[in-house]
This record gives sequence, C-alpha cells and structure tokens, in this order.
Amino acid sequence: MSALGWSSLGYIREVEMTARPVIVVKVGGSAGINYDLVCDDVAALVKEGQPIVLVHGGSHETNLLSERLGKPPRFLTSPQGFTSRYTDPETLDIFAMVYAGKMNTRIVERLQKRGVNAVGLSGLDGRLLEGPRKTSVRAVVDGRQVLVRDDYTGKVERVNAGLLRLLLDNGYTPVISPPACSTEGEAINVDGDRAAAMIAAALSARQLIILSNVPGLLRNFPDESSLIPSLKYDGLEQALSFAEGRMKKKVLGASEAIAGGVAQVVFGDARIGRPILNAMQGKGTVISA
Amino acid sequence: MSALGWSSLGYIREVEMTARPVIVVKVGGSAGINYDLVCDDVAALVKEGQPIVLVHGGSHETNLLSERLGKPPRFLTSPQGFTSRYTDPETLDIFAMVYAGKMNTRIVERLQKRGVNAVGLSGLDGRLLEGPRKTSVRAVVDGRQVLVRDDYTGKVERVNAGLLRLLLDNGYTPVISPPACSTEGEAINVDGDRAAAMIAAALSARQLIILSNVPGLLRNFPDESSLIPSLKYDGLEQALSFAEGRMKKKVLGASEAIAGGVAQVVFGDARIGRPILNAMQGKGTVISA
Repeated sequence: MSALGWSSLGYIREVEMTARPVIVVKVGGSAGINYDLVCDDVAALVKEGQPIVLVHGGSHETNLLSERLGKPPRFLTSPQGFTSRYTDPETLDIFAMVYAGKMNTRIVERLQKRGVNAVGLSGLDGRLLEGPRKTSVRAVVDGRQVLVRDDYTGKVERVNAGLLRLLLDNGYTPVISPPACSTEGEAINVDGDRAAAMIAAALSARQLIILSNVPGLLRNFPDESSLIPSLKYDGLEQALSFAEGRMKKKVLGASEAIAGGVAQVVFGDARIGRPILNAMQGKGTVISA
Repeated sequence: MSALGWSSLGYIREVEMTARPVIVVKVGGSAGINYDLVCDDVAALVKEGQPIVLVHGGSHETNLLSERLGKPPRFLTSPQGFTSRYTDPETLDIFAMVYAGKMNTRIVERLQKRGVNAVGLSGLDGRLLEGPRKTSVRAVVDGRQVLVRDDYTGKVERVNAGLLRLLLDNGYTPVISPPACSTEGEAINVDGDRAAAMIAAALSARQLIILSNVPGLLRNFPDESSLIPSLKYDGLEQALSFAEGRMKKKVLGASEAIAGGVAQVVFGDARIGRPILNAMQGKGTVISA
C-alpha cells in the first residue's frame, strides 16, 4: 500500500483515511528527549500509511533561552498544586521563538529530511487551538500568594479539526505546538498535553500517545521499577495523587481525552528506539475507558 | 459580496476565486515598518473578497536577538555586491526563532484579532519554498575574501502552489516567512523578496507588492523626492546600478516576478495608512512588463 498522500489517486487516499484512524503523538520538551528517534518512527509509520498528528513541547529550551536573555523563567502554582509558566508578554515572545520558531522548524526539518511532508502549525494558525484566556489568576509565585493580571495563559476548548483533516487528506503531516489562540485572537500559553488531548478527541483519534523522558506513570517517582502498566479511566483521579510535577498534567490530559471519546491513551518513553510503535503496542502505561 | 471563505457556500467561493486573482504582499523586516497598518489593510482587503498571501521579513529583529545572545550578525558580500546574512547553524536557529517564531506568530495574532483566519508557514512546511543550498560560497566577510562552507543559504526554485491554493480555497490567509527547504530537506536562509517573487509567479498573482520603509525606488537614496514612479522591465538592469543595499534584491525580485509572468510589481511604503491599497492604486514605484 502506498503511503498516505503519496498516491495521486484521490480515492485510494480516501480508503486509507477511513481504514486507518489517526494517531495523535505528544512529545515533551524536557531534557533527554531524543527527537531523532521520534522522527524516525513518525517517518516509518507515515510511510506504512498510518496518519499521525505530532504535538510537541519546548519547556527545557524555553528555560535555557529565558536565562540567556536575562529573564529567568518563573512559575505559577495553583491552589490545586498544578504549575504553569508565568507568561507575561515578553515571556510569550520567548515562548513563541522556542516553540513555534526553533523547535517546530527543526522538527519539520527532521521530518522533511526523512521524506515526510510535514507542516508546522501553532494554535493561532487557523485558530487551530482556541479557548479563553484567564484574565486574572490567583496563584503562588515564588512562595507568595498573588493575583496575576499580565499572564497570557488559557485553556484549549475548541480545535479546528477541519484544518487538520484538510492537511491529512492531502498527504501532509501536521506538527503542532502552543501558543494557542484566545477567543479574542491573542496568543496564549496553554498546556501541550491537554492541547494534545483536545486534538485527539476532535479527530476521534485511535490512540493518544504521550511520550516523555520516563517510561510511563510511576507509583514512586523516580523509581522506574514502579511503572504502572495499565490503568482504567476511573483510576485516574487516584493517579493524580502520586503523579509528580509535569506528570499531573499528563494524567489530566489522559482523563480529558478519554472523556472526549478517545479509546486509549498511552504514556510512553521517548528515549528508546521506535518510541511510538512501542507505545502503540502497549509498552508504558496504557489507560483505557 | 461576502468575504472569501466566510461563506459556507463552496460554489460562491469558487466564483470569487476565479474572479479575483491573488495579490502577493511582501513586507520587509527593517526598523520603522508598521505591521499594525499593514495588517489593518490586509483585513480590509480580505473582507472585501481580495485573496492575499503575505510574506514577511525579520532582519532587524534578527540582528537585535543575535546581539543579545552574544552572536553579532555577520554579512557576506558576493563579488557582484549583493549582501546576505552569514547563516551558520546557530544563526539559523536564531533566524528561525525570529522569523518563524516571534514575527510570524505576532503577525498571525494581529490578523486573527482583526478577524482574518491567517495560517503561518515557513518554507519548510509542505516544502513550500524549495531550492538548492549553496554548499560553498566565495564572498567578502568583514573585508576579507574567503570560501565559506558552513553557510546554510540557498535560492528558491520551486513553490508548492498546491498548498497555498488549498488554504486560500478554504478561506485561510497564508502568512509566509523564510527559512526555506533545501532539496535535501535542510532549513536554509533565502532572500524574502525573491521568495515572494517566486510565490507570485507560481500563483499567477495579479500583483506583487513589496513594502519597505522607503516610498519606492529612489534614484538618489535616501532623497525621497528622487522617487521613480514607474519603470519598464527592460529598465530594471540599469536600476540595479543605483539601487542601494537591500533595494538591490527587491529589484532582482521584481525582475524575476515579471519574467515569471506577473503583470505588475509595485514597491510601496509600509509606513503609511492603507499601504497595500495605495500600492495597488499605483502609489510608489510601478514596474510592468
């Protein structure tokens, strides 16, 4: 079977689209992530006819650039214990430079080198990822409780699935990153894992695969032997209690994806060979309805 | 008449597409350019049903970020006197951060705020702008003649017009910036004016409008009273002799656009109100076949 979109015969492409539902892959932006391995795997799967939407992060590089520009990163912690980047207008510029600029461009480049016709998009493009901006946030900043008003952060509530289908149906592989688009059209920082969950739900994806620099959900972080191999939807709330830092948002994303109709979410390891195929086959933490 | 793509009636959109050929607008990246005025004008025109492809630069911001990161910009001068940015891998990262990251994101944001459903693209996306990388360049660097091998620079020879038509036909306004995609899939720096010329030729654009921080082509730069109001294609070679610095590439772009079948190229002023409409109506330097 020819790869999706490589055929000039539209009706064959249609059959492939119906036959193979899309997989949404989120790859984190932490240190230690091997983007070459991830892109090798995307290329192998796309060439076999598996449509993929890739969503990526960039937190580690954003921290590095913020430091180099003399604007060290700051984080807000909500009363519930979730952390997010304090994103004032200057930080949003730095964020866009790293996520939509360097990271997205270099991932699209890796895929083009491997013969995948990737198209990079931020959430502003075609209002791909849209939602309300939080106009003021009560949070703990550097240990003190404050009301933050110049934070450009929000939550994705609507995905332009039409734009993604248009690209997929024409043989392109979308590569997506924040920022997203507020309902007023402003650039806003949103959580990448939860954005990927919304994308997977909007596309009725076969699977949502969330890759990071750990083997999956660990009962006792960072003890990798405490990996939880599988979990049901109704066990996710309890999982929030032992998920550390960034894993909390991934658990929340998994819960939102499954509530949105995605049959399976897998937390996989981005540091190994064929990270996506491994996760597709159940290596990591498999979460199902 | 409803705005392009705002109508849900596909056949009306088709009629509009045939009735109104696209205009390609290139807006420079020099200091003094007013992007708010340019985006106001794009919004007004798109809402009247005029399809627009916007191509932008980012040279000034790239210089600023390079300085801030302790990697001051360097320029190569060819034996013919054309200058281009010396783009080693680290410079290409900075370039992508500014052009595809900050500038592209903020222009798309401006358009989304004005109700235009913009989609940002670099030349790597869908191999939109493709051409060979110059593997070694003989040039004058900082006064000395050298052979440069780690320069990621090239020339656009092929435009993926299909991707642009797909977006335009579905109501999106493409916002394009370098880097481009080498034939091997690498990110390469290309000249934005000449890339815009290739885009205009590939789309059989009605006009190519090149906006910068001067009123047009000046016989005696920077004397604005020496503006040349109109010029024929066969006068462009002579124009190269008095065009200063960055204007040389614009003259070259104009010549390539007209050779590629674009009927009219206008050099307009990006600092005034309705800069695109003014140029459409012949204000600036009008170059025709």
